[in-house]
Amino acid sequence: MAIARVAIVGLGLIGSSIARAVKDRLPQVAVTGYDASADVRDVARALGLCDTVADDPVAAVAEADLVIFAVPVGGMADAARAAAAGLRGGVIVSDVGSSKAGVGAALRAALPGHVVIPAHPVAGTENSGPAAGFASLFDGRWCIVTPDADAPAAAVAALTGFWEALGAKVDVMDAAHHDMVLAVTSHLPHLIAYTIVGTASELEEVTESEVIKYSAGGFRDFTRIAASDPVMWRDVFLANKDAVLATLQRFNEDLTVLQQAIRRGDAAKLEDWFTRTRAIRRSIIAEGQDDPAPDFGRRH
Amino acid sequence: MAIARVAIVGLGLIGSSIARAVKDRLPQVAVTGYDASADVRDVARALGLCDTVADDPVAAVAEADLVIFAVPVGGMADAARAAAAGLRGGVIVSDVGSSKAGVGAALRAALPGHVVIPAHPVAGTENSGPAAGFASLFDGRWCIVTPDADAPAAAVAALTGFWEALGAKVDVMDAAHHDMVLAVTSHLPHLIAYTIVGTASELEEVTESEVIKYSAGGFRDFTRIAASDPVMWRDVFLANKDAVLATLQRFNEDLTVLQQAIRRGDAAKLEDWFTRTRAIRRSIIAEGQDDPAPDFGRRH
Repeated sequence: MAIARVAIVGLGLIGSSIARAVKDRLPQVAVTGYDASADVRDVARALGLCDTVADDPVAAVAEADLVIFAVPVGGMADAARAAAAGLRGGVIVSDVGSSKAGVGAALRAALPGHVVIPAHPVAGTENSGPAAGFASLFDGRWCIVTPDADAPAAAVAALTGFWEALGAKVDVMDAAHHDMVLAVTSHLPHLIAYTIVGTASELEEVTESEVIKYSAGGFRDFTRIAASDPVMWRDVFLANKDAVLATLQRFNEDLTVLQQAIRRGDAAKLEDWFTRTRAIRRSIIAEGQDDPAPDFGRRH
Repeated sequence: MAIARVAIVGLGLIGSSIARAVKDRLPQVAVTGYDASADVRDVARALGLCDTVADDPVAAVAEADLVIFAVPVGGMADAARAAAAGLRGGVIVSDVGSSKAGVGAALRAALPGHVVIPAHPVAGTENSGPAAGFASLFDGRWCIVTPDADAPAAAVAALTGFWEALGAKVDVMDAAHHDMVLAVTSHLPHLIAYTIVGTASELEEVTESEVIKYSAGGFRDFTRIAASDPVMWRDVFLANKDAVLATLQRFNEDLTVLQQAIRRGDAAKLEDWFTRTRAIRRSIIAEGQDDPAPDFGRRH
């Protein structure tokens, strides 16, 4: 299946990065964009993100071979229903949401009879909006595709080829497994970061000004992902509730063990734990999933 | 008080960075170094970190106006006792430990009659050892000095001037307050990062390979500080136990509140929390305490 035109519904960080990456890597593919916000559409036009920015979702998707919904996961069903009348037969419907089982079900319910193949590029920054995107965002990052058992193989191959052309590496897995994996590698880290940044900003004994000044001791690392889009993340936690709560329970068990080791002065247990965690970062760098420079390559 | 010679005991990331910064910013000041490890001394000599690398601590500190102990906080007392016989009258004794009340007490007990002014440069990277240091590590970072009430003002001024010459901004505060502030801005973040990296690597449902591959979803941010020196951090948690456990309790309360919001589907509470945390990062960047580039300036 050849993809000659892609429609992107939602032109935030991820949607606008897809548009840029298509223009950069797949110049023969036409890009139509749409966003529910007129302001965002104006920015997208000013930036020249797409060949066409449509003012309504039905027109945006009308001639597309691939439609990608790039909105918060709680808004997928509404976005799909709003565009449904414009979808042609044979179109591949996909998305970029951080949870997959619920999003897949919502899209299939909203678009009966259409081929829905959910996907999730595991990439992003803490910034939001159409100006925050860039064409190389997906380079070397993984995109996880979660087709149902009855998804047409040609459509899965076309979507896989599309993401590979944008620079991503593609894995195919079951939606439920995706949701458990991402609960660990993305959702729990965000929840923990949001928590600790909130905790630090509301202590009586330490002022917010002190937290900011001395943040280079470690705290500042958490503030980056705690600056991510609030609506997007609200929706992720609601959509992937069960897997998030399950991994959170494991985290709480481990934290209690370390808390007890500190209280008891169990030096050996602390040193052993801290030694094992060191190896994981080396593996992430060896896999090309983080910058090998110290401090993430921050300027010093 | 003029500082003509500084002795650095412990030539790891921080000690070696001080040596480099002195040679770079204070070329008129002589630097003598010592490390308990013969291998580290060899590396320090090969790198030319110091004017002299001594083979025993007594010789290392013999002519110094300022002696800085840059060893894990649990090793301060032993390092001080080993050097004590070499200290001349009028020397300023300081350190770089991440906890201050306990370290100050340990140094004063080990070195009766000497002027001890603890200090803590809030700077570092996840790397360890003499090759990991660099001269600009302290540029624009805060160094917290925690003198006792009876510390000579001239000595406090000399130590403050030394750190400012190395590029740092200096704050003076009570040691107990330092320990509470750093529990929040540094120790708790490290404990949380160590915990989650350990949790993620030991789940049955998700393989370590999956955790590594999909770490760009947020997890990789935690692995940097969870790759910090295990012995250093073991000692910090043992030395600052009370403040760490107190702030951990606040964190646990907040995490329980967010856990309940997820379980109950309380969208408004989640969105409100995530919106407030976003502002903190902007303040940290405005204060010059983090890189304004997206993703910490990682290469994309």
